[in-house]
Amino acid sequence: MDRLPTIEDVARAAQVSRQTVSNVLNTPAIVKPETRKRVEVAIRKLAYRPHASARRLRMRKSSTIAIRLDPMTNGISGALLDRFLHALTEQADARGIRILLFTAADPAAEIEQIRKLRAGADVDAFVLTATFHGDPRTEWLVEHDVPFVTFGRPWGVNDMNNPKHLWVDVDGFAGMREATLHLIDAGSSRIGFVGWPSLSGTGDDRRRGWQAAVEERLFPGDGDLAALNLSVEDLLEDARDAVVALLESDERIDGLVCASDTLALGAMIAAASVGRSDLPIIGFDNSPVGQAIGLSSVDQALDEVARGALELLLGETGGDLVRRDAAAAGDTRHRLITPHLVIRQPLRLLAPDAVSIPTATKNAVGNHRNGKESQ
Amino acid sequence: MDRLPTIEDVARAAQVSRQTVSNVLNTPAIVKPETRKRVEVAIRKLAYRPHASARRLRMRKSSTIAIRLDPMTNGISGALLDRFLHALTEQADARGIRILLFTAADPAAEIEQIRKLRAGADVDAFVLTATFHGDPRTEWLVEHDVPFVTFGRPWGVNDMNNPKHLWVDVDGFAGMREATLHLIDAGSSRIGFVGWPSLSGTGDDRRRGWQAAVEERLFPGDGDLAALNLSVEDLLEDARDAVVALLESDERIDGLVCASDTLALGAMIAAASVGRSDLPIIGFDNSPVGQAIGLSSVDQALDEVARGALELLLGETGGDLVRRDAAAAGDTRHRLITPHLVIRQPLRLLAPDAVSIPTATKNAVGNHRNGKESQ
Repeated sequence: MDRLPTIEDVARAAQVSRQTVSNVLNTPAIVKPETRKRVEVAIRKLAYRPHASARRLRMRKSSTIAIRLDPMTNGISGALLDRFLHALTEQADARGIRILLFTAADPAAEIEQIRKLRAGADVDAFVLTATFHGDPRTEWLVEHDVPFVTFGRPWGVNDMNNPKHLWVDVDGFAGMREATLHLIDAGSSRIGFVGWPSLSGTGDDRRRGWQAAVEERLFPGDGDLAALNLSVEDLLEDARDAVVALLESDERIDGLVCASDTLALGAMIAAASVGRSDLPIIGFDNSPVGQAIGLSSVDQALDEVARGALELLLGETGGDLVRRDAAAAGDTRHRLITPHLVIRQPLRLLAPDAVSIPTATKNAVGNHRNGKESQ
Repeated sequence: MDRLPTIEDVARAAQVSRQTVSNVLNTPAIVKPETRKRVEVAIRKLAYRPHASARRLRMRKSSTIAIRLDPMTNGISGALLDRFLHALTEQADARGIRILLFTAADPAAEIEQIRKLRAGADVDAFVLTATFHGDPRTEWLVEHDVPFVTFGRPWGVNDMNNPKHLWVDVDGFAGMREATLHLIDAGSSRIGFVGWPSLSGTGDDRRRGWQAAVEERLFPGDGDLAALNLSVEDLLEDARDAVVALLESDERIDGLVCASDTLALGAMIAAASVGRSDLPIIGFDNSPVGQAIGLSSVDQALDEVARGALELLLGETGGDLVRRDAAAAGDTRHRLITPHLVIRQPLRLLAPDAVSIPTATKNAVGNHRNGKESQ
């Protein structure tokens, strides 16, 4: 084709109407996924650029987005960011964008890496993960006018709608509320929450989801919420010990929701060790470990997170980087993805031998985090 | 420092002798790890280049190595390559090398991606994973003189020592032999093997390790090895069904070794469902899933694999790419890493309800691979 492709060319290639192409570009949610996909393929194939791209910065031929990959990964929950990386790489690749990895020991080191990568003109934009209260990285990126998007809300910042901070996040409140309502619908009436200590933006959000469902449907008495609310580090052993104590102090508990699959597996082991291997437990993250043992869990819809991150950076189609200004951006500066509950029938664990519960459990679990101990 | 750093500068900075620096550069295995690390830090800090680097191609300032990341990851075994990627990124970063990700649906698409990345001069070298019999990628890379290293041996090729094919691999034979000997030492005398169908280079290597240990120590009778040797796809359900059949047909079996943690978890579920949740089972990969449920497994030492891959490409120190010619390369063209056995006390699984073994098990497991089924 000698001229630039038009919207008509795309419509013809995708065998749809001009209006459908326009819908895919402007209001994709109203287009059937198969149709949308067909149009997107045609757009890519023809390298069609909608007029909106006039306000976009064209990237170099081989556009690159960089993301930090941590040296170590926590066996259960850490895999979440690996799965996000797979989704991001796949979807970026479909737009002709490469993903570059770097490492950094802490936020200051990450800023330094970003500075270097920018100086070398190697990288066009950055994806940041694991935002937290008082995160210095995003402040620096905004100040230096570096294109970026975060997987994670700007926790603790007054204005979550700052147009210079593009973000995608998963609605942990909605996910944990749904999980709790599921247990209530299935007959649970006294449901504990196993979460992380505050201030954890993500953890507190999930805790509020549990609390909302309990208050809506179970009308807890004075002090009940506090008694049912555990806060532990994201460690199997800590969760197990806390849940053993909870179950032993309150025999009426008939369900648990947990802020991560790591905590949920600790809770499963605890329940088995006090003879309650049938206790309903729901985790969060839908991790490979959870899937393998049949743990019910809240799935973060990482494909949608990755798509959202790229769309915020690049626009709905094509591979041109957008530096959105506040006026033009409208409501496309952030995405809150609704996760979905996955219910499974779990493998049930045998209680450790009665004689040696503490030791046997200790050994069985003590090696999980550092497998080399017992070599 | 106005002049180029010398070996004496490195020795002074690391507070060791000149000879020790030389040893680190030439025969690192004889240097204590702490000392070696100190010297390597000094080498990096001073940007010291040994004379050997004269025969190296200097990379551009921001050197880049590319690796394929698959869109989907198998929940249990797929995480292995994610863990390799973490190790590779960390160790590359310490040498000032970036890792670039791309995707490819099949080997032909991977070759096309490599061609494009080379054409754009974006990438200096490639790391390939999952080599297989008749792998067209490595042949293409050798023909086109592209610097690369594979994680995986050139299976099915007559000359594994082709100097143009740098490779690192894990000695699956040694790992599986050690696992089998461990069970024999602990009292097992009839040990089954759960592996993949041939021709799987990796799987056949692991199978031979089991066979060697059994032949050395248990003197199997005619047909015993064949009866104890299962071949199934790397799926939980397939392993479970095959192991149920094996255990029901042969009650004397008192141990199982498996070519992956996926197969081992299937075997654990099978053992529990026939009332043998105490059957000793060892997996392979030391996956996060295995660690979480206390599965004994063979650890692939991925840090060593990553280090080996980079050393083959870049030399023992520094960030200069090596195109080794056969004469200069000596025995540094491949690395066979010895894995190590990690023994844990497993969580024991409760047999599914007696009445409904097949269905309950089916449901519990049927959702593992596609969690959305039961939403």
